[in-house]
Amino acid sequence: MAAGDLDRVMHLLAKLPGLGPRSARRGVLHLMQRRESLMLPLAEALAAAARSIRTCRTCGNFDTTDPCAICQDVRRDPGLICVVEDVGDVWALERAAAFKGRYHVIGGVLSALDGVGPEDLNIESLVARADTAEVTEVVLAMNATVDGQTTAHYIADRLAGAHVAVSRLAHGVPVGGELDYLDDGTLTQAMKARQSV
Amino acid sequence: MAAGDLDRVMHLLAKLPGLGPRSARRGVLHLMQRRESLMLPLAEALAAAARSIRTCRTCGNFDTTDPCAICQDVRRDPGLICVVEDVGDVWALERAAAFKGRYHVIGGVLSALDGVGPEDLNIESLVARADTAEVTEVVLAMNATVDGQTTAHYIADRLAGAHVAVSRLAHGVPVGGELDYLDDGTLTQAMKARQSV
Repeated sequence: MAAGDLDRVMHLLAKLPGLGPRSARRGVLHLMQRRESLMLPLAEALAAAARSIRTCRTCGNFDTTDPCAICQDVRRDPGLICVVEDVGDVWALERAAAFKGRYHVIGGVLSALDGVGPEDLNIESLVARADTAEVTEVVLAMNATVDGQTTAHYIADRLAGAHVAVSRLAHGVPVGGELDYLDDGTLTQAMKARQSV
Repeated sequence: MAAGDLDRVMHLLAKLPGLGPRSARRGVLHLMQRRESLMLPLAEALAAAARSIRTCRTCGNFDTTDPCAICQDVRRDPGLICVVEDVGDVWALERAAAFKGRYHVIGGVLSALDGVGPEDLNIESLVARADTAEVTEVVLAMNATVDGQTTAHYIADRLAGAHVAVSRLAHGVPVGGELDYLDDGTLTQAMKARQSV
């Protein structure tokens, strides 16, 4: 019932993850009531980001430069590559300041159900990177899901020929986690990997 | 950790109702993976809507024209005015095709807590509209909340001097609703307003 331009905004907003037609309508009303302070700045920021942000051809990260700032940063260990599913995972690890090497974004997980095979992911380029002399270790940081772990196994197999150590993130009790709320798989892994204190 | 332009999109997206920092991040990744098909069209649609959509000076509805299409539509009864809280309510009533008169958007509800008084709402202009010869009935369609009903009472009082009938939406069992899941207030209202069959 809204006028054409508003309808189009609603239709496009509803495509964002976590938003449906109803929340998109609420969003549009919210935006229209803040035309100068929110709607126009958002329009400009979207256009600017779409224009300026590129995908790093080395690691797959998003940045205004290619290679990205992380790949260019000489203070980061070029011998360590952390393999992640998507750019959001790079952001998560960078927020935690948990890693001082470089990244490789493969862009998803292997999934027979969704028809995603190895050729759809940036795995060839990872194997090529791992084969250079300076790389000593590849850390597989896929999500701890079935598809994520399948993908990690596949990559570990593919890297068997390269002369690099391959590791994965530790499983265990999340910091702040209560045992009573954890699933059996996590508890089993945490017990198996117990460490002396 | 993302580059400047992406950070700005994230920051602005997080201001939409129902989105927080985490879902805004997911939204940005989703947009970046669909730059041509979603991100740029959304930027354009937002800018176009912000430019083209105006607020109808008669009723407060959003449209590309002022007066809006509803106010200009000669097939709609000019004697009937439906008073709603915001434009989303106009859209809801129009989707239901429940009303063939015109609207008046007051732009909120009276709220002592939020410091919203009668002068912050489009009530003067409603009283002026109701005072013209052609208007015969004003339907108060505020939300059935405490603030909504307080506002409806206030408007009914203000319209006492104008020679118009003042009505409100019926309360009762929603179509498809099950008695067992309804609150006592709704059941009491539905019983009080029971109709012969």
